[in-house]
Amino acid sequence: MIEERHEGSDEKETGRIEAFSDGVFAVAITLLIFNVQVPILDNPYTSEHLVRLLVLRWPSYLAFFISFATILIMWISHHNMFKLIYKSDMLFLLANGFLLLLVTFVPFPTQLIAIYLTTPVAGVACAIYAGLFTIINLAYNLLWWRAVSRHRLLKAHVPPALIRTRSRNYLLGVPCYLLALLFAFWNPAVSMGICSILWLFWAITNFEPRA
Amino acid sequence: MIEERHEGSDEKETGRIEAFSDGVFAVAITLLIFNVQVPILDNPYTSEHLVRLLVLRWPSYLAFFISFATILIMWISHHNMFKLIYKSDMLFLLANGFLLLLVTFVPFPTQLIAIYLTTPVAGVACAIYAGLFTIINLAYNLLWWRAVSRHRLLKAHVPPALIRTRSRNYLLGVPCYLLALLFAFWNPAVSMGICSILWLFWAITNFEPRA
Amino acid sequence: MIEERHEGSDEKETGRIEAFSDGVFAVAITLLIFNVQVPILDNPYTSEHLVRLLVLRWPSYLAFFISFATILIMWISHHNMFKLIYKSDMLFLLANGFLLLLVTFVPFPTQLIAIYLTTPVAGVACAIYAGLFTIINLAYNLLWWRAVSRHRLLKAHVPPALIRTRSRNYLLGVPCYLLALLFAFWNPAVSMGICSILWLFWAITNFEPRA
Amino acid sequence: MIEERHEGSDEKETGRIEAFSDGVFAVAITLLIFNVQVPILDNPYTSEHLVRLLVLRWPSYLAFFISFATILIMWISHHNMFKLIYKSDMLFLLANGFLLLLVTFVPFPTQLIAIYLTTPVAGVACAIYAGLFTIINLAYNLLWWRAVSRHRLLKAHVPPALIRTRSRNYLLGVPCYLLALLFAFWNPAVSMGICSILWLFWAITNFEPRA
Repeated sequence: MIEERHEGSDEKETGRIEAFSDGVFAVAITLLIFNVQVPILDNPYTSEHLVRLLVLRWPSYLAFFISFATILIMWISHHNMFKLIYKSDMLFLLANGFLLLLVTFVPFPTQLIAIYLTTPVAGVACAIYAGLFTIINLAYNLLWWRAVSRHRLLKAHVPPALIRTRSRNYLLGVPCYLLALLFAFWNPAVSMGICSILWLFWAITNFEPRA
Repeated sequence: MIEERHEGSDEKETGRIEAFSDGVFAVAITLLIFNVQVPILDNPYTSEHLVRLLVLRWPSYLAFFISFATILIMWISHHNMFKLIYKSDMLFLLANGFLLLLVTFVPFPTQLIAIYLTTPVAGVACAIYAGLFTIINLAYNLLWWRAVSRHRLLKAHVPPALIRTRSRNYLLGVPCYLLALLFAFWNPAVSMGICSILWLFWAITNFEPRA
Repeated sequence: MIEERHEGSDEKETGRIEAFSDGVFAVAITLLIFNVQVPILDNPYTSEHLVRLLVLRWPSYLAFFISFATILIMWISHHNMFKLIYKSDMLFLLANGFLLLLVTFVPFPTQLIAIYLTTPVAGVACAIYAGLFTIINLAYNLLWWRAVSRHRLLKAHVPPALIRTRSRNYLLGVPCYLLALLFAFWNPAVSMGICSILWLFWAITNFEPRA
Repeated sequence: MIEERHEGSDEKETGRIEAFSDGVFAVAITLLIFNVQVPILDNPYTSEHLVRLLVLRWPSYLAFFISFATILIMWISHHNMFKLIYKSDMLFLLANGFLLLLVTFVPFPTQLIAIYLTTPVAGVACAIYAGLFTIINLAYNLLWWRAVSRHRLLKAHVPPALIRTRSRNYLLGVPCYLLALLFAFWNPAVSMGICSILWLFWAITNFEPRA
């Protein structure tokens, strides 16, 4: 039982959910660096050798960058969603927990990309990477749907046009990442390219100019 | 000495305890991903081989999921408890510290499960896993008992019926996890099954419909 | 330049220092679990073997417990200090930064203890462990001294008797940990025993009964 | 779309950016300890051997110290900047995200220094280390420029003299770290020396005495 009766404030409750979610986002985004490993040189130590090994690790830098940018945008998107919401309920909390579970899971496929992008098994790595982001997009839609259906958890004066725009943007993510998932089996480079560009798309849809 | 006299606000003090506890919960839940290791392929690299190795790691995904869900529910439960509390004292702080110690310890038995669930020593791993959650439930009861006995740390208007419901729910956790602990030695799969289901039980008892 | 002139609030500034410090304390305390490693069994897998290896790791559990309890008490002590402070200056911020640096360093000697407590080199490990806590105590005294000398950063109505009690308690920590440091070379077990008990001492001095 | 219309508060929005940034700074600074590895002794275990191995790791302690001090100062600098800002826009948020990406990347060159400072490839390690801090300084200038150009995101009453002082200090960082970058190829020790001293420079410019 969420005893708002003793608190008199639903707002406070979503404040705590946001603070906890922010903590998870912040830790998850910072842990990504562990997927970028320092190469260990054999003797003799030469600068050329170290530079070459560092350059060969480009998939881990790329994976770090895409995952970082995507989690950052997801955090911004999460906040933009919560700004319209004034209370929570059980299903909303569970949907948010499911979303956080997926966010903390991001380092795993990120490391798969870091290790296997330049190998013959790149397709599997890219498919899992794009597949996770597809599921994350489904989770965002689930969370948003729970909040807006019957105007259940929304603040009073959210305009219907805004809800429609948001719903469309959240829905758009699913086919985009599904496309990246399909391309993974045919051409991993294209799949990674789609993932690299998609976070820019979310950045733009999340930051429309103010009216 | 907690100098509330200079602050005029006990509420603020529990606010800080909650913020610190939230930080520990958020970090602990995000670190669980380190128990899910990316498999390292030998040559030749084939997609079938990678997929097979990834599938063989199912115990680490299962352990990640159960531990994540359980820590998430424990965090929600922690917050629901603190919503009824307006001040702290030494024993309450130490009990909360003991609880946090146990929460940060969760990755250890989670990794035991990840590594040993499909081996002949699964019983030991499951027993330690269920045993830790049993002790965590005892710690919740200790924390709650310190707060409610003689209405010591509670807010003024918490209804007795709510206290009774909560006390019963906290107490229920102990025999449930003890059951999982006992089953560990007889059938590890059943033990893990109980642990998988119990967090759902806490989810339901923590989110009763509002009156 | 800390532009309080544009903020109108020194209180807010120490609030941010506390929030950042809390984050560092919370992450540092949660990372300690990485010093508790799951043993890797050789074939054949037997429960007896796993249990024996788990028991043999007792130094890592002990080190985890002492470090956790000590960081927890240091966090409480940090908060109790900041409750009396209403503004900061450059030296205070640097002293606080030095303290945080030492806190984030705790996992290093904790792992030394975990690995070497039962070996002939336990003395070195214990000396570094107790030595770090000695320096941490010096850092607390430095931070406190900066705040109280000439009543520089304190709130207006902090009673002199409270300042004297606190100053004495902070000073007491230094010889206690120095003792643990000296014992390290003679008898590591006694050294660890002192470290195990000292956090209880801080717990008691930090939570005097309210008048 | 950042719906301030529904919130009535731009201040709150930068509050969330700061809280998230603080989380990333706090986690990144605490993760640096993972670059300080405990040496593993071969038999026979002698105290002299352990001490010698510990002393040989001085590059990792140095790298830990410099990175910690630099991130700490960057956090202080970040806060001092945000104290003058009352709203954000898309480019400002992306610039801040780029800065956080660079901050979370710090552990990577820190480990390069820890491993390779005393080897013939120290130049490469130092160049990457100083190079990252050069880019971080450029990111600070970008962030600051976005906020101050046309007084876009600043609070109303920030005096022009303060803006000029800050702009000059931020600009100064770039040539200083470029110098460290150039020295890396000629004399790594000098390069590290510059990096060791520069954070002190930022400490002083960030904490001018109050008028």
